[in-house]
Amino acid sequence: MTELPTGLTLSMPEWFAGLAADLPDEVPVLDDRMAIVNDLARRNFEYGTGGPFAAGVFERDSGRIVSLGVNRVVPLGKSCAHAEFMAISLAQEALGSWDLGAEDLPAHQLVVNWRPCVMCFGSTLWSGVVDIVLAGAGPELEALTGFDEGPIHPDWELQLQSRGIALTLGVGNEEALAVFRAFGESGALVYNGRGGGRR
Amino acid sequence: MTELPTGLTLSMPEWFAGLAADLPDEVPVLDDRMAIVNDLARRNFEYGTGGPFAAGVFERDSGRIVSLGVNRVVPLGKSCAHAEFMAISLAQEALGSWDLGAEDLPAHQLVVNWRPCVMCFGSTLWSGVVDIVLAGAGPELEALTGFDEGPIHPDWELQLQSRGIALTLGVGNEEALAVFRAFGESGALVYNGRGGGRR
Repeated sequence: MTELPTGLTLSMPEWFAGLAADLPDEVPVLDDRMAIVNDLARRNFEYGTGGPFAAGVFERDSGRIVSLGVNRVVPLGKSCAHAEFMAISLAQEALGSWDLGAEDLPAHQLVVNWRPCVMCFGSTLWSGVVDIVLAGAGPELEALTGFDEGPIHPDWELQLQSRGIALTLGVGNEEALAVFRAFGESGALVYNGRGGGRR
Repeated sequence: MTELPTGLTLSMPEWFAGLAADLPDEVPVLDDRMAIVNDLARRNFEYGTGGPFAAGVFERDSGRIVSLGVNRVVPLGKSCAHAEFMAISLAQEALGSWDLGAEDLPAHQLVVNWRPCVMCFGSTLWSGVVDIVLAGAGPELEALTGFDEGPIHPDWELQLQSRGIALTLGVGNEEALAVFRAFGESGALVYNGRGGGRR
């Protein structure tokens, strides 16, 4: 038969390595961790390398940067390549473990420039992070950008709590909203599945 | 600073290419599509190359096989590498599109050996498939295997419907349950995040 695909590669934009080289090893202050994430989100859509979303996995206590991810859906042609997904997978690549919550690892924290979509909410649960920091969680993201975030569970905060995952909301909120506003005003592509439901 | 990871590769098991070469180009009958998926799920855990889950993306009307995926969480060290995620990403790799529902493509169908977890439910919504076929959707999977499928939205069937995604349940149900039962009795690793919440 026709040969079926057997593998794929997911990668950060070319500009990322140069930027990463200028970052400190550790970022002790939470606001500074989010500032890095908000900056990556803005660069990513301004440079045309993906949507206005970024995420980072940090060691919760030391602030060591383990990985940073940006949205890569359109450039890589993969609907899964959201920022949280990239950051989590790259952290697991760096550490050689599918469980960032493994007992021999320090506690890991995911920092994102808004509440994850339904897919990334799930991927966060499976990642092993024990701490999530979000710039916000309200309808502003969808209103400003046109992205569909999907049907997250109505009790998503309780679900995190029941799984021992701490949640901090509102860090870097204004900067995150400024990025979404700039994206919305840019006329850039919104890549909702099935042509935004037109099919 | 320490160099941050910039990419990762996800791959099917080595045994897969040989098996795929013996499959027909097209599988017109739905039961036969699920039989392929159930067979892959069983082989995957029996060969020690991942969990007992498999999925396929087919052209809905012709039955052409676009991609097949199996769970690769533990071998690849990536918590995202669920079967649906692999099948969807490999299909997008083969077609060069992040949207399997794009207007210039035939309608695509996702066939899975049980209801997707919360993450893969989301990834299904973003994939562009317009048709989902599941062997089942009840608590049997979690009861037989010990896997945590997470907090899917209580109205998940309505959510599919409202997004124009058709759902067929119960195809190949007995065979799927037989695979989960065999997995549960094998004592194989269940890779729930954070050591199953022990942390």
